Amino acid sequence: MTDLYSIGEILKEKDNIEILTHHYPDGDTLGSAYALCLMLQSIGKKARVVTSGKVAKKYDFLKKGVEMQEFQREYVVSVDVAAPSLLGENQAEYEEIIDMCIDHHGTNAIKAEVSYVDAKAAATAEAIYELCKAMEIGLTREMASCIYTGISTDTGCFRYSNTTPCTLLIAAELMAVTPDWSQINTEMFEVKTKEKLNLERMVYETLEYSCGGKCALIYTTLEMQEKANIGDDEMEGLASIPRQIDGVLLGITMREKEDGTFKVSVRSNKDVSASDFCLRFGGGGHKGAAGCTIVGDLETVKSQLLTAACEML
Amino acid sequence: MTDLYSIGEILKEKDNIEILTHHYPDGDTLGSAYALCLMLQSIGKKARVVTSGKVAKKYDFLKKGVEMQEFQREYVVSVDVAAPSLLGENQAEYEEIIDMCIDHHGTNAIKAEVSYVDAKAAATAEAIYELCKAMEIGLTREMASCIYTGISTDTGCFRYSNTTPCTLLIAAELMAVTPDWSQINTEMFEVKTKEKLNLERMVYETLEYSCGGKCALIYTTLEMQEKANIGDDEMEGLASIPRQIDGVLLGITMREKEDGTFKVSVRSNKDVSASDFCLRFGGGGHKGAAGCTIVGDLETVKSQLLTAACEML
Repeated sequence: MTDLYSIGEILKEKDNIEILTHHYPDGDTLGSAYALCLMLQSIGKKARVVTSGKVAKKYDFLKKGVEMQEFQREYVVSVDVAAPSLLGENQAEYEEIIDMCIDHHGTNAIKAEVSYVDAKAAATAEAIYELCKAMEIGLTREMASCIYTGISTDTGCFRYSNTTPCTLLIAAELMAVTPDWSQINTEMFEVKTKEKLNLERMVYETLEYSCGGKCALIYTTLEMQEKANIGDDEMEGLASIPRQIDGVLLGITMREKEDGTFKVSVRSNKDVSASDFCLRFGGGGHKGAAGCTIVGDLETVKSQLLTAACEML
Repeated sequence: MTDLYSIGEILKEKDNIEILTHHYPDGDTLGSAYALCLMLQSIGKKARVVTSGKVAKKYDFLKKGVEMQEFQREYVVSVDVAAPSLLGENQAEYEEIIDMCIDHHGTNAIKAEVSYVDAKAAATAEAIYELCKAMEIGLTREMASCIYTGISTDTGCFRYSNTTPCTLLIAAELMAVTPDWSQINTEMFEVKTKEKLNLERMVYETLEYSCGGKCALIYTTLEMQEKANIGDDEMEGLASIPRQIDGVLLGITMREKEDGTFKVSVRSNKDVSASDFCLRFGGGGHKGAAGCTIVGDLETVKSQLLTAACEML
């Protein structure tokens, strides 16, 4: 693995740079990409961000200060992309031509000549912050807003266990550079559309406990999604609802998809392994958060999941 | 105002110290009080915490490591208590005998011989952290957990605009001392009782928009509270529901009380003043968060509030 100083030296030699985010981009991949784009443009490089899938409107502000530049790409950097499949619609075009990869997923599987993967960083944006220092680029308000967004969204605003003292030290400096951090937190963590709230209202009605309250299950159907007028890009956050209930060890969220399957997200507490649970259905993930896909109608899939949950708990 | 070094010197000369929290204590008043109690006991003083009103069960862990000591009080310190009336059931006994006051409310109105009020601190627990340094007391894991709890609860886990770079620097050190910070965040911000979730479910059904979506109103009745089997100490957090909706400038939460009144909490966004709104009903508060009490039945009070909201917006 190359160190960040060398990464910076290489970037200083390149020009006409494309920066790739992952599919259905989140705050970290976008914040990292736009911060890097701003950094490169600030030292006279031509650069642009290439996304894949619908980008939620709330991230529009990250583009602030980025110049739209015409150029033929000469160098490709991926940020926060853990594997080629996560490039989405860009996979075919870019998979084989990524020159540099900057990421924080320990499982990173991107093939690139130059790679920097810091699995201890809470967000890829932490690495971008350190790269900014290593390149001796003056951190601007816009860069700081992008990096702050990446870090705060990937840590649940410094709440999750991936946060480190270093995360907070970086955030303290970012706060001093951008007065926008508070507004960013409001937009990222508080604001909900009326449609989303309406869907949540319906989802609450589906809540069901089993295994003596140790398992909680919620679901959304295509009909509910249509009734609430909500797109797939706005479905995030639902999976955290069942796990947060006192006494619940396994929180299951089922989401009906157009292809006749249910996408199942599982969150667990204490010693219960969400990934062991999902493995039973051919899925996988981390201990606390995992997923799988099951074919079937609502009642059948639900009963399969609840039976498996009670066997496990 | 006395500086923290002098506050520390005074405390070192005293013994048999009672530490007062405010009524219906929250994470900051309790975290500050138990941290101070641990600090004093660690240098050989006798000390205890005196609370008022029901203390939510989730705060029980803050007592960890605190010794139960028998003594006749000789010195009284209030922490995070902004005014005598906030002492609740302890007001009559203690109001006139508070020797030292440590707080972060700029409006502090406690009469005490020695006073330290830092209105720039996000939480009183920040002042307790600095006092610990000033007194040269070694920060233990238990102290750090108490102080972290005070800071994180008063800042919405570093999300609210009262957070400062200094808050994050302190939190970074606390995280390094207590491995419990992540579990604390889960307990403080994620875990909900089944009863609370059930009440929220009912509250979502009361949601009503007016003024073209710029005002959102929710309510709870005694009947709902009884049906959900929820006490008054578990009602926190509801007021943030209506304000978080996209486009809502005024979020109103009505709560039916036993005395035939409605306790109204108002939260506002952008330039709308919640306190101006509540002033119309004889209440008050801050620009973004205010409250008032209105006598009447549900429909009458609701219609008064919605009429006033549309006049103002």
